[in-house]
Amino acid sequence: MSKTGQDIISKMMEEDKFSQWMGIDILESEPGYVKLSMTIRDEMVNGFGICHGGITFSLADSALAFASNSRGSVSVALENNINYTKKVEVGDTLIAETEEIQNGRTIGVYKIRITNQNEDLIADFRGTVYRTDRHKT
Amino acid sequence: MSKTGQDIISKMMEEDKFSQWMGIDILESEPGYVKLSMTIRDEMVNGFGICHGGITFSLADSALAFASNSRGSVSVALENNINYTKKVEVGDTLIAETEEIQNGRTIGVYKIRITNQNEDLIADFRGTVYRTDRHKT
Amino acid sequence: MSKTGQDIISKMMEEDKFSQWMGIDILESEPGYVKLSMTIRDEMVNGFGICHGGITFSLADSALAFASNSRGSVSVALENNINYTKKVEVGDTLIAETEEIQNGRTIGVYKIRITNQNEDLIADFRGTVYRTDRHKT
Amino acid sequence: MSKTGQDIISKMMEEDKFSQWMGIDILESEPGYVKLSMTIRDEMVNGFGICHGGITFSLADSALAFASNSRGSVSVALENNINYTKKVEVGDTLIAETEEIQNGRTIGVYKIRITNQNEDLIADFRGTVYRTDRHKT
Repeated sequence: MSKTGQDIISKMMEEDKFSQWMGIDILESEPGYVKLSMTIRDEMVNGFGICHGGITFSLADSALAFASNSRGSVSVALENNINYTKKVEVGDTLIAETEEIQNGRTIGVYKIRITNQNEDLIADFRGTVYRTDRHKT
Repeated sequence: MSKTGQDIISKMMEEDKFSQWMGIDILESEPGYVKLSMTIRDEMVNGFGICHGGITFSLADSALAFASNSRGSVSVALENNINYTKKVEVGDTLIAETEEIQNGRTIGVYKIRITNQNEDLIADFRGTVYRTDRHKT
Repeated sequence: MSKTGQDIISKMMEEDKFSQWMGIDILESEPGYVKLSMTIRDEMVNGFGICHGGITFSLADSALAFASNSRGSVSVALENNINYTKKVEVGDTLIAETEEIQNGRTIGVYKIRITNQNEDLIADFRGTVYRTDRHKT
Repeated sequence: MSKTGQDIISKMMEEDKFSQWMGIDILESEPGYVKLSMTIRDEMVNGFGICHGGITFSLADSALAFASNSRGSVSVALENNINYTKKVEVGDTLIAETEEIQNGRTIGVYKIRITNQNEDLIADFRGTVYRTDRHKT
């Protein structure tokens, strides 16, 4: 029996130790879509007292993985790009929301907006995934 | 007295808690250049038993921050992009090496190759930074 | 007297020989925004009978130039990225519409959606520009 | 009988009207590789008297198409990104040279450096292609 998108995302989150370390919460999910949140902790800052860009990117990357894999096939990221539009500091709560702009048999493309608790745009991300023949079990 | 590139990079590493969490080592550095390594730990894998893309990206992002800031001005990332060319597993040791392709007064552009212990290309990254008026102290 | 966004865009179009060659029409414009159209001609196709990717990109790039320069400062592109989501053929009419996601003093970031006459998404583009001290006259 | 990479590239160039309009010359080619040149004409400049970014991009895009298709399968571009590092003016001669960083069964990734007649780096490009089941005939 094939899994629903929500089952797939829940199971991915359970097995994803780095998303757990980041403290990611799944706010909403449906096939091809996910909305995530996380709060920036002291251990995520770089030498300027601001959040390491890799953390913001990793939140988007988890959203990409959850949204694309929720379509049923195991999907792997090919290319990702991100613009940073505002700095992130300790204590900020980030929200990542996906938009599926291509849902092909072998290729998927997703845009992800990251905003903070004031609804300011923090980063804009786009990712391309390859859908393999394997299915999530 | 202005700091040398190496001093700047050492000080950034001391203050960068996320790069410390990743276990990044600075193998080589000079103004506008850095070579880093890290080893993938169990807590960095995602639901497929392979390394979360955000970890590979974050290594490149730390390399970008170190190389660009070592030029003396505080630099902030504008846009980053990455292609993933091979999967990364627990125990792999990654090397990130930068190439400065633009060193302007206000804009810097860096390419970063990430390879594993077998010298396979893992990921290819390019980042654009904006150099502020502030200097590293 | 400073020019309005529309004046700047009209003047840019008059002087832009390649946008003229492409047959670009300005459908709408205001400061920081533009909507353009063009129709694919026989001389724009590549060896597969489909439109050269460079044409689709160039339409987005003209939209980026018009929207960013309409803010008053001479802006130059730093980085552009594009995903192609559907093929384009001779006779198709493309629409490019911009969204300004950052309008800083020195940096601007714009997203551009390209659709065809059936409102299918053809390509998704994001561009980063640097605003110089020079003003459009 | 399958075609060689050079035969494929020559045939593509013959059928590619936009690459012909640009005045592209094939300097070197082998499977997975191509080196192209073109000279900037008056009709390629934008409103600043400098070359339209779409022209520089289109040269890289032709190089991507030629290099990737020379592997034998019909390849289509998924994502392309470019950094512009120096302005291009009328009369400049540009050289585009490819580097194949991934040559998979279904995915190919190519980096392209564009330089001018003084060997200055003009732009740095990376493109991801999907290889279809169809073969060049």
